[in-house]
Amino acid sequence: MKIGFLGLGGMGAAMAANLIKAGHQIVVWNRSPGAAEPLVELGAIAAVTPVQAFDVELVISMLADDASTRAVLLDSGALASAKAGLVHLSMATLSTAFVGELVELHREQGVEFVAAPVFGRTDVAAAGKLNILVAGPEAAIAKAQPVLDVLGQKTWPLGDDPLRAVAVKIAGNFMIASAIEAMGESAALVKTYGVAPGEFMEIMGNTLFNAPVYRNYGAQIAEQRFDPAGFRLVLGLKDVGLALSAGHEQRVPLPLASVLRDNLLEAIAHGDGELDWSALSQVALRKSGQL
Amino acid sequence: MKIGFLGLGGMGAAMAANLIKAGHQIVVWNRSPGAAEPLVELGAIAAVTPVQAFDVELVISMLADDASTRAVLLDSGALASAKAGLVHLSMATLSTAFVGELVELHREQGVEFVAAPVFGRTDVAAAGKLNILVAGPEAAIAKAQPVLDVLGQKTWPLGDDPLRAVAVKIAGNFMIASAIEAMGESAALVKTYGVAPGEFMEIMGNTLFNAPVYRNYGAQIAEQRFDPAGFRLVLGLKDVGLALSAGHEQRVPLPLASVLRDNLLEAIAHGDGELDWSALSQVALRKSGQL
Amino acid sequence: MKIGFLGLGGMGAAMAANLIKAGHQIVVWNRSPGAAEPLVELGAIAAVTPVQAFDVELVISMLADDASTRAVLLDSGALASAKAGLVHLSMATLSTAFVGELVELHREQGVEFVAAPVFGRTDVAAAGKLNILVAGPEAAIAKAQPVLDVLGQKTWPLGDDPLRAVAVKIAGNFMIASAIEAMGESAALVKTYGVAPGEFMEIMGNTLFNAPVYRNYGAQIAEQRFDPAGFRLVLGLKDVGLALSAGHEQRVPLPLASVLRDNLLEAIAHGDGELDWSALSQVALRKSGQL
Amino acid sequence: MKIGFLGLGGMGAAMAANLIKAGHQIVVWNRSPGAAEPLVELGAIAAVTPVQAFDVELVISMLADDASTRAVLLDSGALASAKAGLVHLSMATLSTAFVGELVELHREQGVEFVAAPVFGRTDVAAAGKLNILVAGPEAAIAKAQPVLDVLGQKTWPLGDDPLRAVAVKIAGNFMIASAIEAMGESAALVKTYGVAPGEFMEIMGNTLFNAPVYRNYGAQIAEQRFDPAGFRLVLGLKDVGLALSAGHEQRVPLPLASVLRDNLLEAIAHGDGELDWSALSQVALRKSGQL
Repeated sequence: MKIGFLGLGGMGAAMAANLIKAGHQIVVWNRSPGAAEPLVELGAIAAVTPVQAFDVELVISMLADDASTRAVLLDSGALASAKAGLVHLSMATLSTAFVGELVELHREQGVEFVAAPVFGRTDVAAAGKLNILVAGPEAAIAKAQPVLDVLGQKTWPLGDDPLRAVAVKIAGNFMIASAIEAMGESAALVKTYGVAPGEFMEIMGNTLFNAPVYRNYGAQIAEQRFDPAGFRLVLGLKDVGLALSAGHEQRVPLPLASVLRDNLLEAIAHGDGELDWSALSQVALRKSGQL
Repeated sequence: MKIGFLGLGGMGAAMAANLIKAGHQIVVWNRSPGAAEPLVELGAIAAVTPVQAFDVELVISMLADDASTRAVLLDSGALASAKAGLVHLSMATLSTAFVGELVELHREQGVEFVAAPVFGRTDVAAAGKLNILVAGPEAAIAKAQPVLDVLGQKTWPLGDDPLRAVAVKIAGNFMIASAIEAMGESAALVKTYGVAPGEFMEIMGNTLFNAPVYRNYGAQIAEQRFDPAGFRLVLGLKDVGLALSAGHEQRVPLPLASVLRDNLLEAIAHGDGELDWSALSQVALRKSGQL
Repeated sequence: MKIGFLGLGGMGAAMAANLIKAGHQIVVWNRSPGAAEPLVELGAIAAVTPVQAFDVELVISMLADDASTRAVLLDSGALASAKAGLVHLSMATLSTAFVGELVELHREQGVEFVAAPVFGRTDVAAAGKLNILVAGPEAAIAKAQPVLDVLGQKTWPLGDDPLRAVAVKIAGNFMIASAIEAMGESAALVKTYGVAPGEFMEIMGNTLFNAPVYRNYGAQIAEQRFDPAGFRLVLGLKDVGLALSAGHEQRVPLPLASVLRDNLLEAIAHGDGELDWSALSQVALRKSGQL
Repeated sequence: MKIGFLGLGGMGAAMAANLIKAGHQIVVWNRSPGAAEPLVELGAIAAVTPVQAFDVELVISMLADDASTRAVLLDSGALASAKAGLVHLSMATLSTAFVGELVELHREQGVEFVAAPVFGRTDVAAAGKLNILVAGPEAAIAKAQPVLDVLGQKTWPLGDDPLRAVAVKIAGNFMIASAIEAMGESAALVKTYGVAPGEFMEIMGNTLFNAPVYRNYGAQIAEQRFDPAGFRLVLGLKDVGLALSAGHEQRVPLPLASVLRDNLLEAIAHGDGELDWSALSQVALRKSGQL
């Protein structure tokens, strides 16, 4: 299939490479063109403008946030140039409000909009093992399925309303941040009673919390290993902000997300914004005078 | 070994039964004597007073809280009657402040105090599959080990200061409550976007949060199945209170625990105190007008 | 002076009327033209477009929020049409981010931008007794001073950076909301001990908290008198949101504002959004099962 | 009247001195006897034991907290020695739970228990200008009225249930702490926009928040003048804890009090416990990296 791909950050580049390896013809676009080069070497065509990447059978966007997606898809005229029947897989983590706007604009243009946000970091993307949440028109998803099968280990269908997949992605990231905060506060607490954070996380990660999120972040927290960042703390603030905004739209108070937001801001105010977001755990140590 | 056992609630009764089955001679005591009867049928001796249950080689206490432990161990004269060299396994979830006091009183009496709180509900206790956190004098733990091996699937040693095991137990329960709150807020959020809580928990429990805590509580939350209670919400408030108190003693602010406390109070104010503590998730639904 | 006035809501209409009475020539504009009629009867000229209201010596904007200000000042071409040297008094409560953008756009256009947000509701505006926070170029403020003297009882100068006045206005509203929340939680607490909220507020308002904010809102809370709204609760949420956004920009966590936000959302979820924002106090009653 | 007075801290000593000056015969007791000396010079009789101070017509207790009140009134046998008909004015800030216990014990002893907590610091006490909240049996209050008139500028009657006065006192202190927190967060916010905290507090204290609490604490916050302490921060934590406990008893969540508790703990963790409790405002500066 001829596939357009916009956004070649860590995630996007890994995903596009997998599509090429699977035999698809890929037209790639990125704001800074350098990111396209390794993919061109693999066989991708470099688009000069977003419009060009939309002249395909299926287009995937994996841009950083609402603002960059708006710039690349809307302000550039790319969506406005799209032919009716095109399928657009929106795989980035965007706000519910903006996705609602995109759904409407795609309908007007006659383009099929499918939300397909993912769980997994760049290493998971590179291995083609993402978990993909998908929601949109049934026929469009069916058309996209071979592509999704290349990118992920499993696709989780959530019906025909794209907002559903967006909401689940946002809630999932909020739950990860909550787990990091719970580990951070707990580790700061037990430390004052003489228990090393690593000792604590070892027990938790092998009993009640025997899940990758707890084992991986638990080890990072225990070892204070936040650099290089798997997922930058400033992006964590962005994502918790998406949860708060989604809650705001539907009048759902999220007191735990409010605590996360406050503590992520505190972390950034102390210079930890570019570290991995598990550095959120340092805030509990700082508050208790242990840092 | 001749073992005293004080406190025959759901947990204690199941644990004492396992000790009898393993061939130990057990002297049981409970405030309301009826609870001792099934164990006597299995071969236990019913003590008339706590003092009698302390006239053994090793005594286990599994009472409800600080207050009942104080009444049964201290006010009754049981500890004061104990012979030097007795090993006392304190397996209930108590406050760090009170355990600090107990440590001192046992030292004065010449009794070995070992904190051995557990993770696991009554079904896990009945199966002898508890995870046991243990801290205290090395020789005393060694003496208790055969008993611990009957009661649990694994013993997690935490050194010679009993407070360490207590702190880990309290932090672990705090982390469970945090997970319930995160699931509750998330489920309330995605519901407003048309995603059934069960659908959401199914995805989470099979991907990032593939751990018993999330799968079990997630299913309860999705099905709104809170009765009968595996662990009553009022006890959850007690345990979050223990985390806040432990933090207070060491000047560790726990903003997430504060949110939990407020929401557990709100649940109780609305009549849900005797339900399973996963009913904490109802609070997010109520706040957002979905209940 | 020939003065343009955009935005004739409750506040704007009262302010414009005072300027007419003081002998100024006023060119008024409002999205729905009906609001201009009473002022035209008093002698105002009705502008057909925002551009027309900018063809004056000094223009005042008092629009609802960032979005309407953007539409009326920027999208309409009004600012782009303005002559160099015009003074623009921005008296609405806007976000720090948007005012930062306005400052830059005015500089490019050669228009003097003065932020002059106010404390006081419509009755205070009608009486010409507003407290006006002002910040901007010294000469521009000097030119505007006679106008400010008509509108307010006192002008509080805050220097030449318009953002300073904006920040103080936002922080002031945040402090009012905090006071309402504190009264609401306190009233809910003492009520469970048999103290009528009115009795409690009477004591507070005549001792430690002998200030208009506490006496007025305290009486409303005690009498549960929230309709008609002096300031609608949904606007309160907007303003607390401005505080959180201003804090976000500068990395200042505001945990108290986070609590306010959550509780205002809860109030709106229960249908109280159009009531006076002192209805925030109902949330504490609801949480404690007293409503 | 022959009056017993227990507890000669800053507040108690000032109050007892005023009673002597007003011509009453005072029997004073304090844990450390040195505090009684200046009063003996003024004419007081020094009691050797609390029992002696209870052998009077009216006894006043002004001890530090629940624990010291329990020790001095109950453990010493003082209450048990009291004659039926004695009136006991409890003027300290105690928990609702403990006052409930005291009410019951006094009833059994036939002693009239009147709760009479006060608003005002030591300088206000010395001037006889306290605001006194009073609740208890009508006849007992009538008997105490001449004494209350010496101590305070005004007595606020709250009915016959002593818990009412206690609840109002606790809620009042909670409101002061909330005001300090709101000022602290606001000052930290405006500072990042170039507004000096003193400039901000000047405006607030002369407009919306024209009350002693805001003017006095606002000046302290602006000048970072926290030493010597008018009211120590550790006592503030005690009092916010009383609000949380009172809410716990009646199932009233107090999210704002939870924020205060967390931030007061953070202040103590950073060594500010002995400063004036307006140093709570430093926490917002620290969180935002401005300290």
